[in-house]
Amino acid sequence: MKSLLLLCVMLLSILSLNSIVEAKIRHYRWEVKYEFKSPDCFKKLVITINGRSPGPSILAQQGDTVIVDLKNSLVTENVAIHWHGIRQIGTPWADGTEGVSQCPILPGDTFRYMFVVDRAGTYLYHAHYGMQREAGLYGSIRVALPDGESEPFSYDYDRSIILNDWYHKSTYEQAAGLSSIPFVWVGDPQSLLIQGKGRFNCSTPLVATGSCHATNPECSPYVFTVVPGKTYRLRIGSLTALAALSFQIEGHNMTVVETDGHYVEPFVVNNLFIYSGETYSVLVTANQDPSRNYWAVSKMVSRNNTTPNGLAIFNYYPNHPRKSPPTIPPSGPFWNDIPSRVNQSLKIKSHPGYIHPVPKTSDRVIILLNTQNRINGSVKWSINNVSFTLPHTPYLVSLKENLLHTFEQTPPPDVISGYQNYDINKVAQNVNATSSNSVYRLKFNTTVDIILQNANTLNVNNSETHPWHLHGHDFWVVGYGNGKFNASEDPKRYNLVDPIMKNTVPVHPYGWTALRFIANNPGVWAFHCHIESHFYMGMGAVFEEGIDKVGTLPTSIMGCGDTKRFLRP
Amino acid sequence: MKSLLLLCVMLLSILSLNSIVEAKIRHYRWEVKYEFKSPDCFKKLVITINGRSPGPSILAQQGDTVIVDLKNSLVTENVAIHWHGIRQIGTPWADGTEGVSQCPILPGDTFRYMFVVDRAGTYLYHAHYGMQREAGLYGSIRVALPDGESEPFSYDYDRSIILNDWYHKSTYEQAAGLSSIPFVWVGDPQSLLIQGKGRFNCSTPLVATGSCHATNPECSPYVFTVVPGKTYRLRIGSLTALAALSFQIEGHNMTVVETDGHYVEPFVVNNLFIYSGETYSVLVTANQDPSRNYWAVSKMVSRNNTTPNGLAIFNYYPNHPRKSPPTIPPSGPFWNDIPSRVNQSLKIKSHPGYIHPVPKTSDRVIILLNTQNRINGSVKWSINNVSFTLPHTPYLVSLKENLLHTFEQTPPPDVISGYQNYDINKVAQNVNATSSNSVYRLKFNTTVDIILQNANTLNVNNSETHPWHLHGHDFWVVGYGNGKFNASEDPKRYNLVDPIMKNTVPVHPYGWTALRFIANNPGVWAFHCHIESHFYMGMGAVFEEGIDKVGTLPTSIMGCGDTKRFLRP
Repeated sequence: MKSLLLLCVMLLSILSLNSIVEAKIRHYRWEVKYEFKSPDCFKKLVITINGRSPGPSILAQQGDTVIVDLKNSLVTENVAIHWHGIRQIGTPWADGTEGVSQCPILPGDTFRYMFVVDRAGTYLYHAHYGMQREAGLYGSIRVALPDGESEPFSYDYDRSIILNDWYHKSTYEQAAGLSSIPFVWVGDPQSLLIQGKGRFNCSTPLVATGSCHATNPECSPYVFTVVPGKTYRLRIGSLTALAALSFQIEGHNMTVVETDGHYVEPFVVNNLFIYSGETYSVLVTANQDPSRNYWAVSKMVSRNNTTPNGLAIFNYYPNHPRKSPPTIPPSGPFWNDIPSRVNQSLKIKSHPGYIHPVPKTSDRVIILLNTQNRINGSVKWSINNVSFTLPHTPYLVSLKENLLHTFEQTPPPDVISGYQNYDINKVAQNVNATSSNSVYRLKFNTTVDIILQNANTLNVNNSETHPWHLHGHDFWVVGYGNGKFNASEDPKRYNLVDPIMKNTVPVHPYGWTALRFIANNPGVWAFHCHIESHFYMGMGAVFEEGIDKVGTLPTSIMGCGDTKRFLRP
Repeated sequence: MKSLLLLCVMLLSILSLNSIVEAKIRHYRWEVKYEFKSPDCFKKLVITINGRSPGPSILAQQGDTVIVDLKNSLVTENVAIHWHGIRQIGTPWADGTEGVSQCPILPGDTFRYMFVVDRAGTYLYHAHYGMQREAGLYGSIRVALPDGESEPFSYDYDRSIILNDWYHKSTYEQAAGLSSIPFVWVGDPQSLLIQGKGRFNCSTPLVATGSCHATNPECSPYVFTVVPGKTYRLRIGSLTALAALSFQIEGHNMTVVETDGHYVEPFVVNNLFIYSGETYSVLVTANQDPSRNYWAVSKMVSRNNTTPNGLAIFNYYPNHPRKSPPTIPPSGPFWNDIPSRVNQSLKIKSHPGYIHPVPKTSDRVIILLNTQNRINGSVKWSINNVSFTLPHTPYLVSLKENLLHTFEQTPPPDVISGYQNYDINKVAQNVNATSSNSVYRLKFNTTVDIILQNANTLNVNNSETHPWHLHGHDFWVVGYGNGKFNASEDPKRYNLVDPIMKNTVPVHPYGWTALRFIANNPGVWAFHCHIESHFYMGMGAVFEEGIDKVGTLPTSIMGCGDTKRFLRP
């Protein structure tokens, strides 16, 4: 309450200076519930916001305060929404991460999220509780520059789309399978959605009548209408549950200019590889034959899969938006073309005019070995052979209020014992892991390097792609490498000149990715693989920094687990 | 906490007198989670307790204290369990009714239910949150007489079974349909279960391969093995989501001896009608040809339906338990044979040796007109044209701690305005209703009459059966009648001599049922139609009595809604 008051006072002071800073309050009232929807023609229960999935877009300007009053109208199920890419400076309790920053929001409750969007860019929001995100609870956040400031590129129109994959089983069924012994994998998605629209083949055998209609307008392809000659800033976010994607627009190149809120030294692509949790702005000019429409295609890559490509229509005005392009949609890159994907990663550098200087040295190096393991016969993902589990008392509360018995106090290791001899190219000799909910405690204001080290899975000759997302921060991407990270040699080749800052980055098969960030945002922050089932299976970690500098916690984030001890009627 | 301590002290004092009263503590540790099960051969997610549905039976003796430590291992969903038929004298916070007696139990939390089973008899337990009960979260409670006391009938063996109906859609899908505009009704159950086992025809078109296997041992029929010549006390409970049932054992009569914990003046039936929320003990003697097995059949009645009968095997030892009886299963009564059902209701009177004297007059008469209505285009059930909704701050807390803004304070009416002219035989002239969460506040220790008045639904020539269940009390069933209750004449014909006491009673189509109870159990108590979808659609009421006499509430029941104001770190 105190912190809310404080924030109010801050806001009021900002408002009183509105001749200088035009910060506004953007107030949204959202109701979350289950509704039957047919985003890919197959009818299933979807979690909607105000009747929609994707939910309403948040449109704001740098420095604005966003207020979302979120009413949970699910019947028996809680919810929490994470504001992906928003650093929550001064408001770590508004990060929306169940088990980390808050108790879940109970049915019937209205929870107020209030935070400042402090930097222009392209961001996302989505459920951060169990596997709810893939039930449809997601949307986009677009933060514009302050009046008078301009971007290092120009365009005529600004549009946002979210790419997603889509399963027909409920998240309950998927989660129950992942927790079962024997383990039941979620399998390939049934379809790919572009801005909430996809297409499942309703003639597939064993689809119950009445649940799939190819003529349902809900699954008509998404139409992106362009005026010939104009240039579009297309903000693309991916919130796939599983799929790494390639996105392209038939016959049109795309110039990458922004990612995760940071300007990129522009480069041109035919197809954009995008991983779950990433955002990109690309510029597209409608400079092709205007007498026809074109396909926009998203394709699942990095796993051999059965998922059909997602299709949208890139519609040249004044052609009819439903007019099918006369061509066969481009088939996209091979699913296993890893070099092209690594190549794109390497191309992404900071725009020279917008370099955030990276510290030349770090105070601590944490090597996170990504492994697939077994615990009691079930399959898990682990970091340094420890599969992460979330506690049910949020870390932010337990650390701030000294409820330290609510999670394991022995910190996880900075490097796995025996790392020197670990062969990342083979199935581990000992695939057994343990589980833990312990956290990394970072010294405030120190510089931390994270090495994400990929390895072989439980299957021979297999290593997957993992997009890692850090809450509360952007990090510099200082290096990528093939094979095993060499702690004495590889750092010499780090890009300390113009590394991009991001909040989500892939670690490629059998490779490593090196990140650097400054632990300067008081709070407790999740860092995890953004593949929904992978995080559910334990692929994550949590960082605490400057907990003593966190303001008074709002009681609205409490009520669960051990925070009940604060109940004093 | 204080109240827990108090209860502990009480328990310890009881234990210290164990030479006189042999009260025991029956301690159960249960884990609730989702698992794939095939109770009728069709695989779906089921809420299990310790891996089972129905859950473990609670076996106790009169005066024992039952402790259930309930761990919620659902991923994103809360839970609450009601101890159906246990009056919770002195422990109204342990009634397990979300929104009334407690906040829901969050994922990861372990909630302790602790209560005394103060009277021998046959009881049930089940989820009391959203529509979770029909996801499989239920079981039986059997309370034996104290040592040295005996029942007014004799038998060789004591067995419990629960009858249920079973849907293939998830409770989320059902609830979403019931809340949709246009309204989507749940339809007929796909099968009937006898002690958790039923049989769906896996050859039904459009059942996805892999999800239905007729040979799955999980759906082999329930076997009730008997020794020739022996007499069995069969305790039968119904926890159907929708179905009114008839139960019979081919070739065997049943003598009804107990219902809802009260001894019945014995009567013999060929088939037992049983409504959701009721329990009966019947005596069955294995006195038929012992060289074969017999069918036990449950059949859905009271609605024209497509649900196949449920079948179990009444197995004469030493015949093989899987040996099919040589006969066609009895087809049971016609679904629309209302007179037979009313006739059974009228037969149920108190055993002459166990009459609880009923007060000859009442202090207050409340007429609850049961109607089907529309609100904003959706279908609802209402009482006196008000569709009941649950608040999200439990009444017990809001009434005890004076959070009276959390629900509507204008009490519902004791009789609907215009009742004199209401034609129960026709579709209402005005089918629109309002919704409310207001409660009846009863003067402590007064005697209250409730008239459940049935009426025509939204469809011409249709009136349904509603089994009403009262928490925290048993009531005397003082009368049944056809047509509209006549307040000046009908009470003259009340049975004030030997009415049975029950906690659940049907109101028959176009009829009325009169109940009398004493408001002498401090607490807040739900009273509702036990049909899962009907209560969800608003067919319920709540009674408060003696809230000032309720002991200090345990904080474990808090944490949701407005109880968060008690959070003071």
